[in-house]
Order: sequence, then C-alpha cells, then structure tokens
Amino acid sequence: MTYCVGIRTSQGLVLASDSRTNSGIDQVEVCRKMHNFVVPGDRVVTILSSGSLSLTQSVMTRLEQEFRSGAGLAAAANFYDAARCVGGHVRDVAAIDRDYLERDKIGFTVNLLVGGQIRGEPPQLYMVYAQGNPLRCTRLSPYLQIGESKYGRPILDRGIRFGETTLDQAVKYAILSLDSTMRSNVAVGPPIDLLVYGNDDFTIRRYRRLDASDPDLVEIRSNWEQALRKAIADLPQVDFSPLPDQSRVAFTRG
Amino acid sequence: MTYCVGIRTSQGLVLASDSRTNSGIDQVEVCRKMHNFVVPGDRVVTILSSGSLSLTQSVMTRLEQEFRSGAGLAAAANFYDAARCVGGHVRDVAAIDRDYLERDKIGFTVNLLVGGQIRGEPPQLYMVYAQGNPLRCTRLSPYLQIGESKYGRPILDRGIRFGETTLDQAVKYAILSLDSTMRSNVAVGPPIDLLVYGNDDFTIRRYRRLDASDPDLVEIRSNWEQALRKAIADLPQVDFSPLPDQSRVAFTRG
Repeated sequence: MTYCVGIRTSQGLVLASDSRTNSGIDQVEVCRKMHNFVVPGDRVVTILSSGSLSLTQSVMTRLEQEFRSGAGLAAAANFYDAARCVGGHVRDVAAIDRDYLERDKIGFTVNLLVGGQIRGEPPQLYMVYAQGNPLRCTRLSPYLQIGESKYGRPILDRGIRFGETTLDQAVKYAILSLDSTMRSNVAVGPPIDLLVYGNDDFTIRRYRRLDASDPDLVEIRSNWEQALRKAIADLPQVDFSPLPDQSRVAFTRG
Repeated sequence: MTYCVGIRTSQGLVLASDSRTNSGIDQVEVCRKMHNFVVPGDRVVTILSSGSLSLTQSVMTRLEQEFRSGAGLAAAANFYDAARCVGGHVRDVAAIDRDYLERDKIGFTVNLLVGGQIRGEPPQLYMVYAQGNPLRCTRLSPYLQIGESKYGRPILDRGIRFGETTLDQAVKYAILSLDSTMRSNVAVGPPIDLLVYGNDDFTIRRYRRLDASDPDLVEIRSNWEQALRKAIADLPQVDFSPLPDQSRVAFTRG
C-alpha cells in the first residue's frame, strides 16, 4: 500500500509520500515514491507513485532516460503536456506488461501525482490514472491523493483552502494526513518524503525526509494529540435532557 | 452506505449511527439504523446495523418478535449470549435468503454492533459479522465501527482511551467521527442517532436525534474547524534549511 498527497495553494505546492512497499505481509520494504526532475531556472516536475512497484519503476525509468536525453519532461512546453508525457509512458508500459499480468489475474495498477512548474505558467498539480489520462487539481478541491486516501482526508477537507492556507500550514496538514494514515494502516509507513515548492522557485529549495523518530515529526504528533484533546474538552457539551419516552425510542418489556 | 460507531469507556457506552440508505445514487432514503431493546432495571441492548436493508430488517424483525415473547434478547443470561442470539438470527436469515442472492451475484451483507448491559455484568460492546460470529470490544481498542469506517477513524485513534475518556467527551468524538464521514462520503448522511449509556443505567436516559441543521451539531462542527485551524497554526514550523544538494534529490539537467 501507499499514501501520497499533493496540496496546491496560492503560494505553491506541498508534496508528500510514505515509503512502505509490500507484496504480502511478509515482504515489506522501504521504497522512495517521490521522483524529482529539475532543470534549474526553467522547471521542476515531481512525481509521486502508487501501485505495483514493478510497473511504477518501469514508468520512472523510461521517464528518466527520456529526460536525460533532453526530451520528454525536459522539453514539455507546459504542465499539461508534462502530465500527458507521463500518461504516455503509463500507456507504453501497459502495452508491454498488461496482458501478461491480466492472464494471471493481476491488475495493472499505477497511479501517479505530477506536480511542479514550467516557466511561463503558475505551479500545477495533476493525477495520472492507470489508463494514462490526466486530472488537474482545481482551486475548489485544492489537493489530490493516491493510494490509501481515506484516513488522511478529513483533516485536509476541514483545513485546506486554496487562497488562505500558507505553505507552512500546508506542510503541517500534509504531515498530519500522512501520520494519521500510518497510524491506521500498517501498509503505509515512514520515512515521509516532503517537498515544498514555492511559486517561481524553479529549483528544489525545501526538501526533507522524516524518519519515524525524526524529532520534528515526534513533536508535531505529540503537540497535535494534546491540541485535539484540548479542542474536544473546549467544545460545547451536548444536552440530553429531558429524559426520553422509552416506548418511543425502544422496544420495551416489563 | 452506512457509518455506525460504538465507543466503550470505563463510564459506559456511546453509540451513534447515520441514517442514509441507498440502492444506487438515484434511490436515497432516510432509515433508522439504531434499534433499542429495554427491560427497565434489568437490561438495555442496542443494535446498530449496516449492510443490505432488506437483510438487516429481517434480522431486526425476528429479534423484535422474539423479544416481545420474552425470549431471545429479553432472556439472554449475559451479553455474550445476547451477541450469540443476534448472530443466530443473522444465520437464520442467511439460511433463508443467501442462496437466492448469490445466484444473482448479490452478496449477503450484514454487519451489526451490539452494545448495552445486562444486570450482573459491566456494559459490553460486540460486533456481529455476516457469518454470525461475535467480536468483543476490548480496553486496548475501545471502539468498534461498521460501514464506511476509514474517514472517521483517525479522530478516534488519537483521542479515545478506555480509562480516561469521559462519556461527555466520547459523545463529541462520536459526533466528529460521524461528521467527518458525512462530509467525505455522500452515501453517509444525517440525521445522527446518538445514545449515551452510563454504567448501570438499565434504561435509556440520554438519546438524541440530530438532523443536519441541529444547532448543537452546527456549533460543534464550526467550533471544531476553528479549533483545528488554531491548533495547526500553533504547531511548530518544520525547518527546511539548509538548501538540499539538487543532484542528490533530483534528476537534473542544464
């Protein structure tokens, strides 16, 4: 399993991924799911991956070969074209592998988040599906998730607003969303890769890899749980008076 | 879809359920999923239901008929027997309906939470699976969920402690857990049925049905979102210095 999240606000992007990969519960490994492509001063493209490790590795290898040759992500004229370039490689790998997987009842599972900026446009964030088609993150739904997305979603729904949330705040939301997910699903695990991309950076200025015992992660988690308990205590109490009429709320006897 | 949660603390139980039922997105109805059986001074048994409405209705109808005759839930000597009684009716309905569903590729989906107290024991909380077997809620995992459980779980994991959480606090956790789920999945919806059972009540003293515009629900939701934003703002900021070595964190060109 995997959990990756991308948040897009008016100040830029926050991208975060876990690092656990497993095939069965007895084969659990650490694996980086964040892949960065940079042409300093011109473009940053970050890809977060979930799904079959074999398949996402193939997609990333082919993207890297193309990028090193100066084509593909190095040459895309805009971010929509970059997302289409990624989707094209997903389709190429599907053409090579999909039939062989399906005849053994193994699904072709690849989901990618593609975020960053190409000079001439504001930062962008896309999801690329296993079918290769792209979905753009909008101001009204200013985040995208792949993998085990449900546990980490409520905190994002309650808090993230495109025009209001600062990048510093978005970092905290991303960490809490990952941390909630790691706590509830053992197939999602540390370290957390964390990248903050500010508008017009065109290079990677803020990147961290937080392992399970990272002091910042431990402090955020502990402060957060204390703050939640205090917030619960401060909420108004629910009034249950008067005593309900038993026969209206229950089957009764005697 | 459905979401129901039961919380068990040293002070008693909190049970909560949503009220939305649907078969397809164009047939959405309101349906009560909380069913209470009371013998005042002797026992309270509350059942929360998820799964096929037809199947859970059958189970509840048979439990009610038996209870009114003074048998079944009215006569169970202890709560384990009560949970087994519920499981027995699940198996009876499976014996009647399961083959007819499965030949049309429809699953036999029934999940129940059974909470309450029978005189002579402390309060108990069980899950009863579609196979009829019971699972007891323990002090180390002091809550159980059925239905769409993931969105509403992180808040419970962070906050609920058997020996520390008061019933008044547990009510707020239950409401927030339901509210987070309703916000993220339109197949879970109001009103919320909410029952608080204090140790040795042996009757229903605290019951509320909160519709979407209930002032208490609206106030809790609004205060909670404000408190979360403040808690995020108060968390320590993550330090991203120094500038990372580009070639170590990215494929670079130019």
